[in-house]
Amino acid sequence: MRLSPEEARARFEGERIARLATAGADGVPHLVPVTFVVEGDSVAFAIDHKPKSTTALRRLKNIAENPVVSFLTDRYDEDWARLWWARADGVARVLTDPDEQALPVQLLREKYPQYEAQPPPHAVVSTLVHAWRGWRAS
Amino acid sequence: MRLSPEEARARFEGERIARLATAGADGVPHLVPVTFVVEGDSVAFAIDHKPKSTTALRRLKNIAENPVVSFLTDRYDEDWARLWWARADGVARVLTDPDEQALPVQLLREKYPQYEAQPPPHAVVSTLVHAWRGWRAS
Repeated sequence: MRLSPEEARARFEGERIARLATAGADGVPHLVPVTFVVEGDSVAFAIDHKPKSTTALRRLKNIAENPVVSFLTDRYDEDWARLWWARADGVARVLTDPDEQALPVQLLREKYPQYEAQPPPHAVVSTLVHAWRGWRAS
Repeated sequence: MRLSPEEARARFEGERIARLATAGADGVPHLVPVTFVVEGDSVAFAIDHKPKSTTALRRLKNIAENPVVSFLTDRYDEDWARLWWARADGVARVLTDPDEQALPVQLLREKYPQYEAQPPPHAVVSTLVHAWRGWRAS
């Protein structure tokens, strides 16, 4: 059954990993897992890799060409009555200004202590979500 | 570090759930979790929902407009040294002929006993994978 936007957002926010889908001007979808934080109606994640990394470039190149993105969280269980997923669809913007990055980086470090051992991010992508959707089997 | 195509394929095949990204002519990426089987270099999944379901329609509409799709499996762990993901990029085709559906449906039922209690699928989508890619943290 469909989840309300509020329930979809709450389930999404409670997860540790989401999958980001982007599609560039060529229309080819690209998928990668991301750690993330929800701040209001925005989903933010950091680009930890150096810009020379092909993976990071593809993600950022696609967003530059087409900022419409989608994030998915889900729960698999062998009892299919317990399946659910939650999705955030929105428009992404790359934050390169350290002042703009400060709050999402702080929230990421609070959610993921693992970030304390990581170098500062190369960039932060913030996505303004226009639709929270979700489904649960029962 | 990058995974070889063989290792990416093997890790992908060992998972129970993947995320499917499609993008229609409008370039909007769409994400949904799917159960799946790997058969040679193809990834197949079934559309269980009735065609009137909006979700199923969006997935099939996008594939009809733009058959290039991507699937992702991943493993999250609080020990980030254990993170990995594996991705299959390819071109999808909707199988509606029961003869064409027979093998993937049989493989899906063997992998997922849960399908025994489900009605026959509305359609099966088979994706010929042109690239297996993956990454593991260590």
